[in-house]
Amino acid sequence: MRVRNKPWAGEELRSNPHVVQKPEENKGKWAAYFSNDNPIYVEIGCGKGRFISQSAQQNPNINFIGLERQSTVVAIAARHVLEKQPNLAFIRGEVERLHEYFAPGEMKRLYINFCDPWPKKRNYKRRLTYRGFLQKYKELFDNEGELFFKTDNRGLFEFSLNEFCAEQWNLSQISLDLHHSDFEGNIMTEYEEKFSSQGMPIYRLEARLNKE
Amino acid sequence: MRVRNKPWAGEELRSNPHVVQKPEENKGKWAAYFSNDNPIYVEIGCGKGRFISQSAQQNPNINFIGLERQSTVVAIAARHVLEKQPNLAFIRGEVERLHEYFAPGEMKRLYINFCDPWPKKRNYKRRLTYRGFLQKYKELFDNEGELFFKTDNRGLFEFSLNEFCAEQWNLSQISLDLHHSDFEGNIMTEYEEKFSSQGMPIYRLEARLNKE
Repeated sequence: MRVRNKPWAGEELRSNPHVVQKPEENKGKWAAYFSNDNPIYVEIGCGKGRFISQSAQQNPNINFIGLERQSTVVAIAARHVLEKQPNLAFIRGEVERLHEYFAPGEMKRLYINFCDPWPKKRNYKRRLTYRGFLQKYKELFDNEGELFFKTDNRGLFEFSLNEFCAEQWNLSQISLDLHHSDFEGNIMTEYEEKFSSQGMPIYRLEARLNKE
Repeated sequence: MRVRNKPWAGEELRSNPHVVQKPEENKGKWAAYFSNDNPIYVEIGCGKGRFISQSAQQNPNINFIGLERQSTVVAIAARHVLEKQPNLAFIRGEVERLHEYFAPGEMKRLYINFCDPWPKKRNYKRRLTYRGFLQKYKELFDNEGELFFKTDNRGLFEFSLNEFCAEQWNLSQISLDLHHSDFEGNIMTEYEEKFSSQGMPIYRLEARLNKE
């Protein structure tokens, strides 16, 4: 997602209570940050935050953290949250640094929604479901956790199915056309609403690691 | 596939050397039938036999058996084989009776190509990738074997992915658009040629059981 710079973004990032200032200082201490032991779910690439904010509203007993690379986008996401939501936080940061923000076993679920498909073959290692990433997530989960994935890109979904299977994750709730399926309780991202309204099928799966 | 009755079908079934007269008498003895110990690959619902005949031609060191329910269709498939092919046989029979034709471990691979999708929800147990069938195949494989599956039906493919995953088969080579993928050596069925030429995507996967 590319957005124009906003003059108010810097101040929003510094002052909005939903933005975590130094996420690496919370590593291993997120329970203290949220003042409870509720499970932590993280969205990688949360964009303008609609999905994670709605998820937090609907599930007060779970702590949600949205990770987003672009400062301005994090600022927009945080500004959209009108009332203080105690179970919601945003990190301006990179997926490559997840292990600096979270201790192994600290998060229970990852969401990856409509990430960049990197369609050119030579860029496959940048796709967030490339096996190299899956191995990193596995370490972060301490071998036990779940990853929920959505995309509108058929090629990326095909690639992802093969990567998850190659890495022995257990798949379920695989959908090749989510909006015409029986799946209930779907929370749409901004992007998802736009593309599904144009009739594009949305692909989804749930992948789990089970401690051996 | 529905075909009109052919007056010559009965005689073809009785006299064509590629048609196995009493398949259940070969149970556990297919090596003797083929006069070799080569692996046996079976196609369920081989239709007019194009896929299995071409596979047999291209792979002389593997024995191929096509199973088909409808007598007339078996007769057509057998008649299409112009020269005697020692590694090819047809059985007029039912998937529900596979265990009467084959001993556990006797076949190494199953093909299911463009089977009836049984789209109505209440009929899901008739789909050849329903977990009840997968469990039967597993018994027939004696826990070690592979199943190659193709369909043009998105709903059936989605269902199948979930069934294979639920039954812990290992999936690979998953394709959501086979004819625009890197997959090499695809042999088309009659049905596949017709539908893919209309631009319909073809779905494919390989599923494996690994002996524990």
